[in-house]
Amino acid sequence: MITQELTIYNTLQKNKEKFISLIPEHAGLYVCGPTVYGEPHLGHARPAITFDLVFRYLKHIGYKVRYVRNITDVGHLENDADEGEDKIAKKARLDQLEPMEVAQFYIDSYHKAMDKLNVLRPSIEPRASGHIIEQIEMVQQILDKGFAYISNGSVYFDVPKFDQEFGYGKLSGRVLEDMISNTRELDGQDEKRNAADFALWKKASPEHIMRWNSPWSIGFPGWHIECTAMSTKYLGEHFDIHGGGMDLIFPHHESEVCQSTVANGKESVKYWMHNNMITINGQKMGKSLGNFITLNQFFNGDHAMLERSYNAMNIRFFIMQAHYRGTLDFSNEALIAAEKGMLKLNAADKLIEKLPASNNSSENISEWVKRCYEAMNDDLNTPKLIAELFDASRIINSVKDGHLQLTASDIDLLKENFRLFYYDILGMVPDTAAVQGEDVTEKLMDLILEIRQDAKTNKNWGVADMIRNKLTDAGIVVKDTKEGAEWERKN
Amino acid sequence: MITQELTIYNTLQKNKEKFISLIPEHAGLYVCGPTVYGEPHLGHARPAITFDLVFRYLKHIGYKVRYVRNITDVGHLENDADEGEDKIAKKARLDQLEPMEVAQFYIDSYHKAMDKLNVLRPSIEPRASGHIIEQIEMVQQILDKGFAYISNGSVYFDVPKFDQEFGYGKLSGRVLEDMISNTRELDGQDEKRNAADFALWKKASPEHIMRWNSPWSIGFPGWHIECTAMSTKYLGEHFDIHGGGMDLIFPHHESEVCQSTVANGKESVKYWMHNNMITINGQKMGKSLGNFITLNQFFNGDHAMLERSYNAMNIRFFIMQAHYRGTLDFSNEALIAAEKGMLKLNAADKLIEKLPASNNSSENISEWVKRCYEAMNDDLNTPKLIAELFDASRIINSVKDGHLQLTASDIDLLKENFRLFYYDILGMVPDTAAVQGEDVTEKLMDLILEIRQDAKTNKNWGVADMIRNKLTDAGIVVKDTKEGAEWERKN
Repeated sequence: MITQELTIYNTLQKNKEKFISLIPEHAGLYVCGPTVYGEPHLGHARPAITFDLVFRYLKHIGYKVRYVRNITDVGHLENDADEGEDKIAKKARLDQLEPMEVAQFYIDSYHKAMDKLNVLRPSIEPRASGHIIEQIEMVQQILDKGFAYISNGSVYFDVPKFDQEFGYGKLSGRVLEDMISNTRELDGQDEKRNAADFALWKKASPEHIMRWNSPWSIGFPGWHIECTAMSTKYLGEHFDIHGGGMDLIFPHHESEVCQSTVANGKESVKYWMHNNMITINGQKMGKSLGNFITLNQFFNGDHAMLERSYNAMNIRFFIMQAHYRGTLDFSNEALIAAEKGMLKLNAADKLIEKLPASNNSSENISEWVKRCYEAMNDDLNTPKLIAELFDASRIINSVKDGHLQLTASDIDLLKENFRLFYYDILGMVPDTAAVQGEDVTEKLMDLILEIRQDAKTNKNWGVADMIRNKLTDAGIVVKDTKEGAEWERKN
Repeated sequence: MITQELTIYNTLQKNKEKFISLIPEHAGLYVCGPTVYGEPHLGHARPAITFDLVFRYLKHIGYKVRYVRNITDVGHLENDADEGEDKIAKKARLDQLEPMEVAQFYIDSYHKAMDKLNVLRPSIEPRASGHIIEQIEMVQQILDKGFAYISNGSVYFDVPKFDQEFGYGKLSGRVLEDMISNTRELDGQDEKRNAADFALWKKASPEHIMRWNSPWSIGFPGWHIECTAMSTKYLGEHFDIHGGGMDLIFPHHESEVCQSTVANGKESVKYWMHNNMITINGQKMGKSLGNFITLNQFFNGDHAMLERSYNAMNIRFFIMQAHYRGTLDFSNEALIAAEKGMLKLNAADKLIEKLPASNNSSENISEWVKRCYEAMNDDLNTPKLIAELFDASRIINSVKDGHLQLTASDIDLLKENFRLFYYDILGMVPDTAAVQGEDVTEKLMDLILEIRQDAKTNKNWGVADMIRNKLTDAGIVVKDTKEGAEWERKN
C-alpha cells in the first residue's frame, strides 16, 4: 500500500505533479551516473544524494523500486560533443593503461566515495560498454524508421526531420532554428547534414582504442544512445522517473527524448527530475578554475581552498540543507555551519533516550510527524524537513530541561520518527565517529566518569581537572547535568 | 627491475617452474571470479585470497600487473552442464526480479565481503553479459576454422575433432575415450554430435529471460566462452597466468584451452594456477549438506555450525596458514587456533616499536629476511612465511625480555620487513579492531593507566582493582612490565 501522496517537479511539464506510477506500487527510476575518467567530486555527490533520497523515500512510502544508474565507460567525447577523443580513452592513453583499467579504477573510487556518503547502491548499475548490442539494435530501429542516416560509416540522428514530425525541444525548450543559426555553417566536409544532428554511432579513427563491429563500421556508440538503450532494457519502453543533473538536460536528455520517441514509438519517461548545480564561492566548479575539489579532498582536507577536512556526513547534510532544485554554493563557512546543525541533531538523538515522561504532553507530536511527511511529499523538500528536525531538537532539549512535557508514548513517537526521517530517509549515519569503536569508547568513558565522580566527591580537584584536560585532548567534552555527567565527541 | 626469482606450480606442466613473463616486467593475470547468484561463502574466499597474494607479490617484486577477474552473470547453467536453467535467471525467477538485479545484488555482496577480507580489487572486472559481441565473434572464428557446428540454433564445440588435431585433455588429463564411454549414449534427440562436445552458444527457450541476437539464434553464450573472449580482449592472445579453483580445471578450463587453441591459433596461457578446495569438518561444502556457511555468517557467527563469530582477518589468516595447493579443512578449532596465531603476530608488531637497541646483534636479521623471500618465491609458500613471522615474534619477545640482542639498524630492518610481509604481502590489516576509533581509545587508555598508576603509588588498591575489572569488562587486558603498564584488546 502506498502510504503518502508524493508530488514531484516534472521538468517536462515545468510543474509539480502528483506522482502516480505506471504500474501500481512499482516505480522505475533511471539516473545518469558518472563518466568514469576522474576522481569523484562534489558535482557527483549532489545527483547521487538527490536520487538516493528519491529511492529511499519511494521505498519508504510503499513502492517496490527498480533503480537503474548507469556507468558511462565509453562514447562520452570531450566537451560533450560528437568530435574529439573519448574521455576515458584519453585518460588511458596518458596513463598508458587499457581503457577498462581506467574505468575500473574510477568505478571503484566512485563506489567508495558513495559508500562513505551512505548513498545506497542502485538495483542495477549497467555499463555502456556492456550494452553495445542493445545500442546497435536501437540505432538500427531508428535508421529503419527513417530518422537517422549513415554518413561515412557513422550514423547520425536527423534532428530537423524529428522536429517536423514530433517537435524538438520539449524538455530543454531549445528551438531548432535558434540552434542552427547559433552554430557555425557546415563546411561541406562535415559528416552531418545539419549542425543540430547528433551521433548515434561513430566510426572509429585508427587511434581509437575502444571499438566494436557494427553493420556500419568498426566504431563505438554515441554518448546519448546508451541511456535510451539501457533504460528500455531494464525498465521498459515507458517508465516512471528519469533523473540527472540540470546540465544534462541539453543535449543529453533532449537527445534521449528524440531517440526513445522514434525507437519506442513514444516518449518513454513520465517524470523528468533534475537537480541543480553546485558552485564554489559563487563560481562554477572546473579543473581550469583551480576550484575543483574531489570528495576525498573534502574527506582529508587536502586542498588549498579547504580550511580543514569535512567528513562524509557533513557533506551529505550540507547538500540536503538546500532543496535539490536550488543552486548550492560551497564555502568553508557553509560546511562548518552544516556541521554545527548536524551535531545538534546528533546530540538531540542521544538525548531522546533519557527524556523524563510526563502525564500530559504540551506538544503535538503527531502534528510534527505530519509536517515531516508534508515536507518530503512536497517535491522532497529536505530543507523544510531538516527545519522540522531542528524543531524536534528544540522540543527534546526543552523536555529534558523541564520546560516542556511529553507523555511516554509521545516520547516514543518522537524518537521513532526522528530516527526514521534523520537516518532512514535522509540517510544520515547514527554517529559520524567510528561506530565499531564506539562500544569500547562507551565503556572506557563510563569508567573515567566514575573515577571523576569519586575524585569530586573526595574533593580531589587535581584528578578531576587532569581528567577534564586529557579528555579535551581526546576530543571529548564533558558536561555536568543534574542527571550526572554527560559526554560528547567534538568532530 | 624484478627483484626476486619466483617459481610457481604450473598445472599444465605438473611442475614448479620459474616465472618468466611474456613481456619483461609486465604480468597478465586472469582469474575466474564468482557466478553471482548467491551470498559469497568460504569457497569464494580461497581463490580470491590466493590470487590476491599472487597480485600483491608480483607487484612487490617489480611487475606491472594487469589483473583481470571476471563476473559470470549469464550462461552458467545448473550443474555446470549445457542443459538446464541459468543460475542467475533461476534465482531471478524465484525472487521475481530482473536477472541483472540479482547479479547486481550479489556483486555488491561479493565486493563488500572481499573488501573486509582486504582482497585488492582487480585492475579490470569484466562481466560476461557485457561482452556478448566479443563472445559471438569468437564463436564465429571457431566455426570458421571448422571446430564447431550449428545444431538447431545452438553452436557446439567439436571435441573429437579437436582431440584428433591438437590432443584433448592437456590440462585435466582427461582422456576423450574414457569420457565418452562414461556418459550415457546420445539418444538421437540430442543436439550434440558427441556427449563430450560443449556449448558455445545456446538458443534460448521461450522462458529464458537473458537473450541476445546472434547469427545463429536469439540466445546466450555458453559458460566457457566468456573467459576466453575476455582474457583475449584484455590480456591478449598469449598471456602469463590463468588462475582459479581446482574444481574449474574440468570442464571449464579444459574447454578454455580448446577454444583459445582454435580461435587464437595457439594455447593462450603460459602458467595455469589452481587453488585447492575447502572442506568443512572433512566434508565438501554444499547447500544440501547443511554445512554451507556464507562469509557474513562467519563475520557475525550466525550459523548452527559456528561456535562464535570470526572476523575477516581471522578468516584470511586461516586460509593463508595452508598452502594454496593443499586442502584446507574448516573447523571452529582451526579458526580459533588461527586467531591465536594472528593475535600473537599483532602483539609482536606492537612490541617492535619499544625494543631496546644493543651494540651487537645476536640474531641474523638479513638471513631471516632472505628466508621470508625464499618462502614466497617457492610457489607462494605462505605457511612457511607465517612460520618465519612466528620466528620473528619469538625474537621480538626475547629482545624485549633481554634474552636476545639487536642493534638499532637490525631492529629497523626487522620492523620494516615484518610489516612488509605481514601487511603488504600477506594483506593483513594492522588491527582487527576498529582502526578509526583506535585513536580515541589510545588516548582514553593513556588517561586510565595514568590514574591507575597514581592509585597504585598512593596504595589506593580499591581504585586500581576497580579499573582492572572495568577494563576486563571492556575487553581490555592490562599487563604490568618493567617499562610500565601495557594493554591489549581481547577479540
